[in-house]
Amino acid sequence: MAEEVQNGAGADNGSKAAAVVFAAVKPWLVVEAPKGNDAVQFYKAAFGAEEVSRVNHPKRKAEQELPLVLSAELKLGSSTIVVSDLTDDDSAPVKSAVTGSVFCLETEDVEAAVAKAVAAGAVSEGEISEGEGACCGGRVGKVKDPYGNVWLICSPSKKCGDVAA
Amino acid sequence: MAEEVQNGAGADNGSKAAAVVFAAVKPWLVVEAPKGNDAVQFYKAAFGAEEVSRVNHPKRKAEQELPLVLSAELKLGSSTIVVSDLTDDDSAPVKSAVTGSVFCLETEDVEAAVAKAVAAGAVSEGEISEGEGACCGGRVGKVKDPYGNVWLICSPSKKCGDVAA
Repeated sequence: MAEEVQNGAGADNGSKAAAVVFAAVKPWLVVEAPKGNDAVQFYKAAFGAEEVSRVNHPKRKAEQELPLVLSAELKLGSSTIVVSDLTDDDSAPVKSAVTGSVFCLETEDVEAAVAKAVAAGAVSEGEISEGEGACCGGRVGKVKDPYGNVWLICSPSKKCGDVAA
Repeated sequence: MAEEVQNGAGADNGSKAAAVVFAAVKPWLVVEAPKGNDAVQFYKAAFGAEEVSRVNHPKRKAEQELPLVLSAELKLGSSTIVVSDLTDDDSAPVKSAVTGSVFCLETEDVEAAVAKAVAAGAVSEGEISEGEGACCGGRVGKVKDPYGNVWLICSPSKKCGDVAA
């Protein structure tokens, strides 16, 4: 488990935290590298998902033929899911997650949302930082709920184009 | 792993399967019993989720004070998440899942959707059956994708009221 950080906005921020609004939940499916692209193809074939955007892992482009997926955003009905290869690179927003699913919550006020979750019993993991890739176009905080689920609390994602090599 | 069933609608159903449409993805959070109610309260407090409906486990009402949650449906932004206590009762739609998350996909044509997923490489688990509770108001099929994630493919859920004891 990463170091626990009680963000400064904690206890004295109740009134602000009460106004936290989330847009939606985005399930994030982290698969063992380099199967991320296979997984994207599978969700297209199996469930008719549409790929909205993809960010490949920048360091791998020159190293190997198959670039690793940092995050691929797929539309599935009215929902969005995100698929990533699991890597231990610093730029990966889910680097400390085991393979499994992570839930993204987008909100305009990341600090207040993290503070509210921590006040309710979640554990903040790491510091709020600048994210990268789908679901994490801006600032991102990470909390683990008391039941073992990881929630990324992000500012709304930028509408990035497909930057695949 | 449950027995694998290649549903009869498989290979010869490509044209029908191509029309499969899903409404949305509902993440299903399965927590160790009897913490389901705690988890619901946590998601309300931490993320402002609104409880839309709840179905308690019918057998437990007389046995113990705290009824187990068969499924509680929570609205979180434009998304819906479902929370359940993990039980091994036959009526639980996720009885063979380990604690973790399951993704629900609602569609009008469960058979075609399962067939399409299996044709794409998913493994069908168990037979399509009548479900119960949120996300599974009607027929439900279950497939595991090649990356270990469980997807419940359900006919649209009934709008059931709160039947808690």
